[in-house]
Amino acid sequence: MTWAVISTWKMSWKGCTLAADLLRQGLRGSEAVIRGIQDVEDNPEFRSVGYGGLPDEEGRVLLDGAFMNGDSLHFGAVAAMEGFRSPIAVAHSLAKYDFNNFLAGKGAEKYAAENGFERRNNLTEESRAIYEKKRGESQSLSAYDGHDTVCFAVLDQMGSMYTGVSTSGLFLKKCGRVGDSPVAGSGFYADSRLGAACATGVGEEIMKGVLSYNALRNLKAGMSPQEAAETAVSELSETLIQRNGKARSMSLILLDNRGNFGVGTNIRFPFVYAAETSSSTLYLAEAENGRCRITPVEDKDSLDID
Amino acid sequence: MTWAVISTWKMSWKGCTLAADLLRQGLRGSEAVIRGIQDVEDNPEFRSVGYGGLPDEEGRVLLDGAFMNGDSLHFGAVAAMEGFRSPIAVAHSLAKYDFNNFLAGKGAEKYAAENGFERRNNLTEESRAIYEKKRGESQSLSAYDGHDTVCFAVLDQMGSMYTGVSTSGLFLKKCGRVGDSPVAGSGFYADSRLGAACATGVGEEIMKGVLSYNALRNLKAGMSPQEAAETAVSELSETLIQRNGKARSMSLILLDNRGNFGVGTNIRFPFVYAAETSSSTLYLAEAENGRCRITPVEDKDSLDID
Repeated sequence: MTWAVISTWKMSWKGCTLAADLLRQGLRGSEAVIRGIQDVEDNPEFRSVGYGGLPDEEGRVLLDGAFMNGDSLHFGAVAAMEGFRSPIAVAHSLAKYDFNNFLAGKGAEKYAAENGFERRNNLTEESRAIYEKKRGESQSLSAYDGHDTVCFAVLDQMGSMYTGVSTSGLFLKKCGRVGDSPVAGSGFYADSRLGAACATGVGEEIMKGVLSYNALRNLKAGMSPQEAAETAVSELSETLIQRNGKARSMSLILLDNRGNFGVGTNIRFPFVYAAETSSSTLYLAEAENGRCRITPVEDKDSLDID
Repeated sequence: MTWAVISTWKMSWKGCTLAADLLRQGLRGSEAVIRGIQDVEDNPEFRSVGYGGLPDEEGRVLLDGAFMNGDSLHFGAVAAMEGFRSPIAVAHSLAKYDFNNFLAGKGAEKYAAENGFERRNNLTEESRAIYEKKRGESQSLSAYDGHDTVCFAVLDQMGSMYTGVSTSGLFLKKCGRVGDSPVAGSGFYADSRLGAACATGVGEEIMKGVLSYNALRNLKAGMSPQEAAETAVSELSETLIQRNGKARSMSLILLDNRGNFGVGTNIRFPFVYAAETSSSTLYLAEAENGRCRITPVEDKDSLDID
């Protein structure tokens, strides 16, 4: 049977290639999602996820993550969790329960500690230096850079679909801020009979349109994966401009249940896709009149966005 | 112009009648939502909301709440907040920002303290006694009683729609557990050009189907309010039974943008509705072959569900 994986940002290249290897071997999609995301969580060069993530207003790295099983619709999610290596691993573990799947703050940390998850101080010297420098600058600066969530959506050879997301959230976010990433329907959604989708960008905008679920409803209504994804983003973007004068950045990746992908964005947004019939490829998506122009990137090093 | 309000459970009767009075006078729907919900938050007889709410596994009353403005799609939400009187008031206050709209745990408490929100120990002697008794009982008991969220959806005379929700969440929930109530799309959603919906029941099930937003997408697809609500609940309920062998309790209230209501439920579920053309009425909704039978309750005191 066919398999496919799609992931957000150039930073997921290595993780996506690893996930593709696992899917090719016939492993479960849950394993591919977790291993792919952990590759990004563990890399201190990526400032928006896991180790080396950028801190909140108090200088602490608080992480969000979520995992969803598209067979059972069970999900697990953590928000504002400090001091552990892998939000995606904790979120995956929470997905096995019938209650208490979404834990925030001290509760998430208590669960992670009680269940033996690896501890880690995720604040690196480099992230601390960026924080100190930004705090010293003028208040008129936009504090909201680096809000780039790693998202994976997969279809495995058993026909099961999964999504996973992991992020340190908005740079200089308020203490306890919950973005879209751990929020089912906004940051992620998976239903093996339909498709899987996940989002990156400014969480507060993504939640205003319940973006991931919205895209899957478009798919259910008969749109192609590409139409479903780009319509979800462009409609929300237009709605926010009409009502609030502005729409902040948002991007969405989607797989249908046959492994075809769709992508929507209102910025320049790189993503990675691999499937049975297609080796790992980096693409650049660009917004263009409410549609999305997608081009393969031949030379990864030439792309100026992580 | 017309106005309407719908609210969950018999416990919202007084608050709904108060909200209807405010809407009749031409006040903003946001005011009606907040005042209606606060009437329930402040009443210690209701064990699932605010003062007198049932505690978590550690014996602490941690509250969730959310507010959404259907004109701008801005929302505010708090999760696992301890020691303050009114989650709906804090959530409403958070809805005015462009970032950091959803705060959990210590972060929510810090925001509420800094912004002068009234403090209150919400653990009453009665709730503590129920907690101590339940803890002393066999583990085989279902700990998940009293998960009844107060939800309001309104249309005001200016044509604006709002939703608000408030709850103490699952009795004996894990520390830091986030239910559907503060989760946009699942516990609540409002879009003044379409409708407003909110949900009560087992949050972990409601989030699996992004229930409130799902119902509004049904409305957008051309269903009547009643079809939209009952189809959302019955489809999710059937899906969960097919995939997991069981669907736990969930109920949904909905208004379209002309003030017509729809309700879906898989249990016996009372709600209250008032509108320009209809004084406050208590109804009982009952699941029946995937549909929902709705009957007015003449004698409120005769109804055995709060």
